[in-house]
Amino acid sequence: MTFIEKLSAAWTANNSLLCVGLDPDIAKFPAAIKTRPDPVYAFCKGIIDATADLACAFKPQIAYFAALRAEDQLEALCDYVRETYPRIPIVLDAKRGDIGATAEQYAREAFERYGADAVTVNPYMGFDSVAPYLEWKDRGAIILCRTSNPGGSDLQFLTADGKPVYQHVAQLVADKWNTNGQCSLVVGATFPDELAQVRRIVGDMPLLVPGIGAQGGDVQATVNAGRTSAGTGMMINSSRAILYAKPDQAAGEDHAKAARRVAADTRNEINRFR
Amino acid sequence: MTFIEKLSAAWTANNSLLCVGLDPDIAKFPAAIKTRPDPVYAFCKGIIDATADLACAFKPQIAYFAALRAEDQLEALCDYVRETYPRIPIVLDAKRGDIGATAEQYAREAFERYGADAVTVNPYMGFDSVAPYLEWKDRGAIILCRTSNPGGSDLQFLTADGKPVYQHVAQLVADKWNTNGQCSLVVGATFPDELAQVRRIVGDMPLLVPGIGAQGGDVQATVNAGRTSAGTGMMINSSRAILYAKPDQAAGEDHAKAARRVAADTRNEINRFR
Repeated sequence: MTFIEKLSAAWTANNSLLCVGLDPDIAKFPAAIKTRPDPVYAFCKGIIDATADLACAFKPQIAYFAALRAEDQLEALCDYVRETYPRIPIVLDAKRGDIGATAEQYAREAFERYGADAVTVNPYMGFDSVAPYLEWKDRGAIILCRTSNPGGSDLQFLTADGKPVYQHVAQLVADKWNTNGQCSLVVGATFPDELAQVRRIVGDMPLLVPGIGAQGGDVQATVNAGRTSAGTGMMINSSRAILYAKPDQAAGEDHAKAARRVAADTRNEINRFR
Repeated sequence: MTFIEKLSAAWTANNSLLCVGLDPDIAKFPAAIKTRPDPVYAFCKGIIDATADLACAFKPQIAYFAALRAEDQLEALCDYVRETYPRIPIVLDAKRGDIGATAEQYAREAFERYGADAVTVNPYMGFDSVAPYLEWKDRGAIILCRTSNPGGSDLQFLTADGKPVYQHVAQLVADKWNTNGQCSLVVGATFPDELAQVRRIVGDMPLLVPGIGAQGGDVQATVNAGRTSAGTGMMINSSRAILYAKPDQAAGEDHAKAARRVAADTRNEINRFR
């Protein structure tokens, strides 16, 4: 089963377009988890168990693991997802981008070492920096297009031949790079009009959409702008708002239950507008 | 001492603009090293010892270590360089690029975990994706501008407001991002005219120049186009041509001696044109 097929099945099985981002920051962990020998694994496993029936994908952000020298915990976590929730795809958020020979190594890192179903990649170095990921025929490459951060406009919004660079990226991927149906794009929720532009360019290609939750993107506008005619086509990511949801202590919530509540609310809010 | 000061001192001390890239590929190692418990460390340490008086920088490419689950060997290697050759800066080639909160984690990975003097970063996500590296005031951020691979033209050569995207990157970095003199740019040796354009835009800013050696860039054209008026301003990288130089067995060379010979020849050829 390819990444895209696995993602499509998860959209249906969990009736969800919600991607749960895993950005583990030990300073924000509950005290009982901080002191464990494998705090990052334990924390993320708790989130995964609490949200696996609500998510269409899990997206670990490798920077958080690398800064903590916790690649072994990320490996264990990916193993755990594959064994326990084999229907939920793993998107490794790594935003790699390098020349072909080096990209081959990054593809091995993502797909062989971590067993990810897809990896995020940066288009700045062009097609030969993306092609090595596409050699892994059952995996996906999710290419940065229009990002949700303030500086995203510095280059992505430069206008060349009458259209902004991010639309060139969408067009290149749709017309030339996506030779085997393995590509997706990253388009931030903070710019719904631009999300709609990208949707028009790329047809039914899946979009990874960060920027709701802590980053402030509007759910209704995002879904309206980015869904396909089938009411799917998106992995709408939320990380911090779910991971660090404040437990309702009067209701007896711990951090995992709070995460589940916010994930369910987010999934349901997305579904209201599909 | 800042990265730029350390680099300038190494240019002078070793009379060299040569950056030795460390892209360890076990399949290409000598048989006696392949079977060691720490082959990547052992191989790279041999190259470092053989070239430390010929180089202005060492540039480990993290993808090769990550694919092999060898982050511990990369840490040990960076420790070794800092302890044994403290005057030679370490450039971690990682080409990271992500939003601010994530970039903070990547900066910790590069500067705290590996103790690198500088790290390569990708400009596609704009200034706030670069700013967290600049918080480390004694370190450097080396930003992709014009890359030496064939696909580099896909986006970098799109023309906006009369000039190609890569020149916008050079201008942005020179005019706005380089607030504390910590920035450098990556400009490939395969396009000497464009290297000269970038040099005109950025003044004396150091340039990391890959693309000579295995990638075929011309040394004379590269040095003519990229040097500053002081005859420095560049880290001209060679990786594979040095690492996997063929030993002259009649002359009793092993792989390290062959690497030293090619590194010396490359440094000297660069110096002929400075």
